[in-house]
Amino acid sequence: MAELAGNLLVAQSGGPTAVINASLAGVIQEAGRHECIEEIYGGSNGILGVLNEDLIDINDQKAKTIAGLRYTPAAALGTCRYKIDFKKKPDQAARDMDRLFEVFQAHNIRYFFYIGGNDSQDTSHKIHDEAVKRAYDLRMIGVPKTIDNDLPHTDSCPGYGSVIKYNAATVMEVGLDVGGMATDDGSCCIVEVMGRSAGWIAAGSVLAKRAPADPPHIVLLPEVPFQEDKFLAKVKEVVESHHYCIVVVGEGAKDAQGHELGADKTRLDAFGHPILSGAAEELAEIVQGKLELKTRTVKLGYAQRAAAHFASATDADNAHACGVAAVKAAVEGQSGFMVKIVRDAGPNGSIKWTTGLQPLADIANVEHFIPRDWISEDGFLPNEKFVEYARPLIEGEVKFPLEGGLPKYVALDKARIEKKLPPRA
Amino acid sequence: MAELAGNLLVAQSGGPTAVINASLAGVIQEAGRHECIEEIYGGSNGILGVLNEDLIDINDQKAKTIAGLRYTPAAALGTCRYKIDFKKKPDQAARDMDRLFEVFQAHNIRYFFYIGGNDSQDTSHKIHDEAVKRAYDLRMIGVPKTIDNDLPHTDSCPGYGSVIKYNAATVMEVGLDVGGMATDDGSCCIVEVMGRSAGWIAAGSVLAKRAPADPPHIVLLPEVPFQEDKFLAKVKEVVESHHYCIVVVGEGAKDAQGHELGADKTRLDAFGHPILSGAAEELAEIVQGKLELKTRTVKLGYAQRAAAHFASATDADNAHACGVAAVKAAVEGQSGFMVKIVRDAGPNGSIKWTTGLQPLADIANVEHFIPRDWISEDGFLPNEKFVEYARPLIEGEVKFPLEGGLPKYVALDKARIEKKLPPRA
Repeated sequence: MAELAGNLLVAQSGGPTAVINASLAGVIQEAGRHECIEEIYGGSNGILGVLNEDLIDINDQKAKTIAGLRYTPAAALGTCRYKIDFKKKPDQAARDMDRLFEVFQAHNIRYFFYIGGNDSQDTSHKIHDEAVKRAYDLRMIGVPKTIDNDLPHTDSCPGYGSVIKYNAATVMEVGLDVGGMATDDGSCCIVEVMGRSAGWIAAGSVLAKRAPADPPHIVLLPEVPFQEDKFLAKVKEVVESHHYCIVVVGEGAKDAQGHELGADKTRLDAFGHPILSGAAEELAEIVQGKLELKTRTVKLGYAQRAAAHFASATDADNAHACGVAAVKAAVEGQSGFMVKIVRDAGPNGSIKWTTGLQPLADIANVEHFIPRDWISEDGFLPNEKFVEYARPLIEGEVKFPLEGGLPKYVALDKARIEKKLPPRA
Repeated sequence: MAELAGNLLVAQSGGPTAVINASLAGVIQEAGRHECIEEIYGGSNGILGVLNEDLIDINDQKAKTIAGLRYTPAAALGTCRYKIDFKKKPDQAARDMDRLFEVFQAHNIRYFFYIGGNDSQDTSHKIHDEAVKRAYDLRMIGVPKTIDNDLPHTDSCPGYGSVIKYNAATVMEVGLDVGGMATDDGSCCIVEVMGRSAGWIAAGSVLAKRAPADPPHIVLLPEVPFQEDKFLAKVKEVVESHHYCIVVVGEGAKDAQGHELGADKTRLDAFGHPILSGAAEELAEIVQGKLELKTRTVKLGYAQRAAAHFASATDADNAHACGVAAVKAAVEGQSGFMVKIVRDAGPNGSIKWTTGLQPLADIANVEHFIPRDWISEDGFLPNEKFVEYARPLIEGEVKFPLEGGLPKYVALDKARIEKKLPPRA
């Protein structure tokens, strides 16, 4: 494969995570090692910034700032939920694609790394196909990122280990709090976590359990249809044993008819999915109303995916490695792949993490769910198979500097590259 | 003052905190240094355990477990919300008081340390008065504890520094998350924190702000009546400047008529206060409805007060010092006081923390609010005076052991003392 000289573009997409910037740091740091990569640009707010020719100059950032991205949560370049939608808006999508390649051409972009989840890998796949069709020499590599852990073919998704580490610590702490207050009357606390279709995030809270009596006592997964009567019977049973019950519910938990517990159908997000809010509140009303049990709720929301103050070092290292591997693969001539994380068993139960490549065609719009045999028979808890899978993902703590008792995160200097094109129509 | 020989009882009351066990450790460790203190007992679930003669044997706990209480959140002895209510239930209260002294007598309790907030200091005060009236030789000292920071006469309350440290880190992280997603459409995120009458907890989130543009952009305090039109104008102004707006709201925020934003008046807690839930949800509906601005909510709930994984070392040290000081004062013959935290200016802006004693009569049922001149003129942010007060309280991080990527907290062995009395009537 002939060496391809040109500029590099990297962008971040979708919901941020505690380690999405670690992948960005990996891309930038590895890019600096290859002479064929001339300039490094960042898309401001994902693909939207590329369409708007709104490009951030990465070349003059301080090395210290780039290093700081390894412990700084959220999307340092900015992110977006804009989708190039060939199905629903084919004309707009065609115009968008033309514009993207105008921007690539104008700035001699030859390397494009898109850090994102399912929708973004789909976008990356389409861009790769278009580049081939247009005979535009582009190395397009997707870098995985999603707290939802629902990308196929990769062992796990960067962002996932950190969100479940934080959530499990929270469930452990909330459990001590509620357990310490529990008297004969009993009480219940419902912790709502993210996760729309797949229950990976909710399931991860089971890592808080070191003994059978420990919380969480019930984990409601979207993979197992919610049945109110069985759920209430289980809460009652737990409270009779322990005087309190900690329930973790994924925001996407639904019943057999597909009705999402927390759906507010009056509001849709940019991808047309109904906005979910209030699974915990709805459950609390059920428990309080039907069992007359004091019930409180916790809704961690964005706090869980941004909680870099208790992020997983394994997750951050894997996220960084994905960024590095993406650049290496591209420089070696690869295009049209997503980097994936590979788990290899080492000696004495240790794990060796490496990366691999998977064609983007295999990734786009495929969702990866928790296997049914990783969930207890009654459906209320992930089992040992899940724990064996998830436990290594939360190992180690990311170190970060503090100032005045709070984390000292970094911010990129957002100096823009001079525009060369007329504004987007 | 003649030396008083006898047994020690310590109990925890009300909502737990990240450092209430540090005070317990202080009591136990200091008690071990005084020969006049013979046995150490813990009340199981606060005063309720004392009434039920349900006493935990502390003498045989491992020193390592006691040391571990310094970093273990929530109430290791168990806590309760039971109130000896002389106003509303005078007959029951009189019976309770008789029973307490029967238990004290039966177990030769001569030292009683009650770790708690406003209601518990009131209970301690009444017990002290009763002991004097009954000529029962008892050293009764209250140990302050409340995330609400609303006890008077003390510089601050153990538990407060830790809750605002965690909340401020969370607001910082959620701000990065939402800010990184912000595009021209703008967005808003509302973080609901605890705090019923006083706004100390909500105010503490302002420590996340290192520059004027940083979140939180608006902090709604119960001390400043909520005005919807002014609030919406402020949100609009912030979004026009920064593309996003982070609002922190205390669960007790209310309008000029005293209507609490998040009150669910159909439910009352054990003290007869309406249960608060949903201030953030109500605000989100207002913002989304009136400004057509994408709005999300975070409700930290119990997670904030139990978050020992990011607790303040200053707070934990002060909590421990309060426990130590309580025992020292009692051994020296004092009774009827609450330990208070005293802040002394040291060289170069440093602070020397000490403790003092305040008569319980000065504490009970007095609530301490944020001075109006610590809040900005428009009422939407605590000002520099508040920051100067609060910043030192979050300094330093509590170290804790980890196992498998999660905190390794300790639990007391709950072996009970043999009962000597017939069951409580």
